[in-house]
Amino acid sequence: MSNELPLGYQYSSVYAGIRKIKKDDLSLIVSQPAANAAAVFTQNLVAAAPVVLSRANLKTSRGKVKALIINAGNANCSTRSGMNVAASTVKAAAKHARCTAVEVLPSSTGVIGVELDLKKIKSALPELFAGLSSERFGDVARAIMTTDLVMKTAQATVELKKGKVHIAGMTKGSGMIQPNMATTLGYVLCDAAISVQNLKAILSSAINVSYNRLSVDGDTSTNDTVVLLANGASGIKPNGDELKLIADAITGVMKSLAAQIARDGEGAKKLIRVLVSGAKTEVDAVLIGRAISNSPLVKTAIAGSDPNWGRIICAAGYSGAKFDPSKVDIFLQGKRVCKAGLAAPFDEAKLKLKLDEKDVVIDLRIAGNGKGATEFWTCDFTEGYIEINGSYRT
Amino acid sequence: MSNELPLGYQYSSVYAGIRKIKKDDLSLIVSQPAANAAAVFTQNLVAAAPVVLSRANLKTSRGKVKALIINAGNANCSTRSGMNVAASTVKAAAKHARCTAVEVLPSSTGVIGVELDLKKIKSALPELFAGLSSERFGDVARAIMTTDLVMKTAQATVELKKGKVHIAGMTKGSGMIQPNMATTLGYVLCDAAISVQNLKAILSSAINVSYNRLSVDGDTSTNDTVVLLANGASGIKPNGDELKLIADAITGVMKSLAAQIARDGEGAKKLIRVLVSGAKTEVDAVLIGRAISNSPLVKTAIAGSDPNWGRIICAAGYSGAKFDPSKVDIFLQGKRVCKAGLAAPFDEAKLKLKLDEKDVVIDLRIAGNGKGATEFWTCDFTEGYIEINGSYRT
Repeated sequence: MSNELPLGYQYSSVYAGIRKIKKDDLSLIVSQPAANAAAVFTQNLVAAAPVVLSRANLKTSRGKVKALIINAGNANCSTRSGMNVAASTVKAAAKHARCTAVEVLPSSTGVIGVELDLKKIKSALPELFAGLSSERFGDVARAIMTTDLVMKTAQATVELKKGKVHIAGMTKGSGMIQPNMATTLGYVLCDAAISVQNLKAILSSAINVSYNRLSVDGDTSTNDTVVLLANGASGIKPNGDELKLIADAITGVMKSLAAQIARDGEGAKKLIRVLVSGAKTEVDAVLIGRAISNSPLVKTAIAGSDPNWGRIICAAGYSGAKFDPSKVDIFLQGKRVCKAGLAAPFDEAKLKLKLDEKDVVIDLRIAGNGKGATEFWTCDFTEGYIEINGSYRT
Repeated sequence: MSNELPLGYQYSSVYAGIRKIKKDDLSLIVSQPAANAAAVFTQNLVAAAPVVLSRANLKTSRGKVKALIINAGNANCSTRSGMNVAASTVKAAAKHARCTAVEVLPSSTGVIGVELDLKKIKSALPELFAGLSSERFGDVARAIMTTDLVMKTAQATVELKKGKVHIAGMTKGSGMIQPNMATTLGYVLCDAAISVQNLKAILSSAINVSYNRLSVDGDTSTNDTVVLLANGASGIKPNGDELKLIADAITGVMKSLAAQIARDGEGAKKLIRVLVSGAKTEVDAVLIGRAISNSPLVKTAIAGSDPNWGRIICAAGYSGAKFDPSKVDIFLQGKRVCKAGLAAPFDEAKLKLKLDEKDVVIDLRIAGNGKGATEFWTCDFTEGYIEINGSYRT
């Protein structure tokens, strides 16, 4: 991380004994002053207790957030004590943070259906708060990881005439066949003064081109949470044009975080960017992009550096989008492999070498005047995924 | 196979050199007399030439079928010569079978986007027809296989006062994450005299509780085809009640074929039956059953004999069905692991042993008066799937 982190935020993490491996599993972000906030949560009918409570707190506090408290190793979902544990955690944290309970948002990630031990959290709180530092951003980014192999952060600085606005984001999430099913947590912090209403608009539009392009849709895990905070600690209150610049920077940070999730897919060796253009509408483009990104047959082919474009056009074909297959061109790593729906000549050995690279681009173009275009991120699909998920609980 | 195959059908298969491995890849079923037929085909926008031609032939012939000709190793899809190869194959076969071209239905399965060599098929036809025998049912069942590890057949005999009606089916298909994406071919033969209209009704209802419960939906491969033939060679023309018995037997044969496909999923070691009951409507039950059956996280957990019921309730939660999670019980191998949406006590070691068995039952029950119930078949999800699909083309 560069030193240009947003002003007014402090971070801490400890090992509270929630996960088996001794690796920090409880973390905290505190904002001074309390921040304005917007958040999006899972659309799953089965929502974890921290999600239910965060939604309620955000509503009651009208978008005011003093602290985020996050545990890894246990989803606190489908548990008897779930709401009590979440509420007691928030209450205890609020005491330490000297704020009201509704100004604390809890998140959890990990196994579903196992009781989360409140005592462990409560005992860890004094050390957690004592450890607060403006320099421990990375510690929290690491402590929220579960099956993630690398920590995922992104930063941006917007230079306005009035001064600098800083943005920093961290995220976790990995399971990538239907990535929706592995919990995604994301926290994006900003030190400009932005109204709750504007934050909501910025988050909603940024989510749509970042996390929602991870082949995620309405299908989400029980705990998914992305929070955007703005605390005004920079003293900068952007005007309309400046707000637009900040919104763009926040969107950039969130796109970077989403792409990092794809690259770190469970067992993944490659980041796949799926580009679709020329579809009749954006909805059609998104349908096609998602079908290709979700296709295990496409993802295994890319793992094997196999330019099997038939699977790509097949996925487009069942996506639900309407298009003329005879107008489809498909490019792999910039090389045309399918022209007008038919095989295009290419040097198999050369293309295989190119597909061995860590960044793969699948580019499906429909000829004509269609304006619908999109970009998705996914990853290849290797034996590692099975190893990770065959014994996740044990 | 028992000797009680349907009367009036002959079978043959040869190696025409379409697939690389020397294993029969061209097969033929001929009916004497020509049969009445019903068929269902892929709903994929990208449909292979043989699918397009079969649809058209069936329409022109008003459901009359003399012969089925099937090749494995090449899907004849997204190819320049696709329609010409399919039409020429059918024309040449019709000459041998002494029928009109529209009475021949072609099917193909294999790689997409590679030209299918018509010459190979034409040269093989004399030997293919010369080999016709009423005893080579199994040869065809083997010749239509691609990544299938075992041949899949099922039989039934219905004893009516008028005499016996025989039913025999064969199928191929394997890729099982979203099984829709691997081509499924199915041929069910019957020797009763049944009208085309009745055959359509029987097939439509039987498909709905068999192949459509393989977590397959509108999402289908480019070549999927299931054909039901009835040639009347038994001399038996069933009345209404008898027709019902025959329909039930056909449904049973198709259910067996579908379950065999699930068990032989690529890399699969276990057949998973997913039972859902107590949903508000059948549509809700199907949504839940399909989400669980399609979930790679559920399928990897079963591969690892991990009773991770949280993933099951999570899949139900994002299925789109409306239900109260606190009314859900989940049973694995008959053992309750989740009661009223919460963890139920169970002996982990014992249950793990039970989950090591080759047949696994996931039973999700929603308490209350809901009448919606369904049964799905899927398979566990192992490293083998990746190996098979990472280099399918090469």
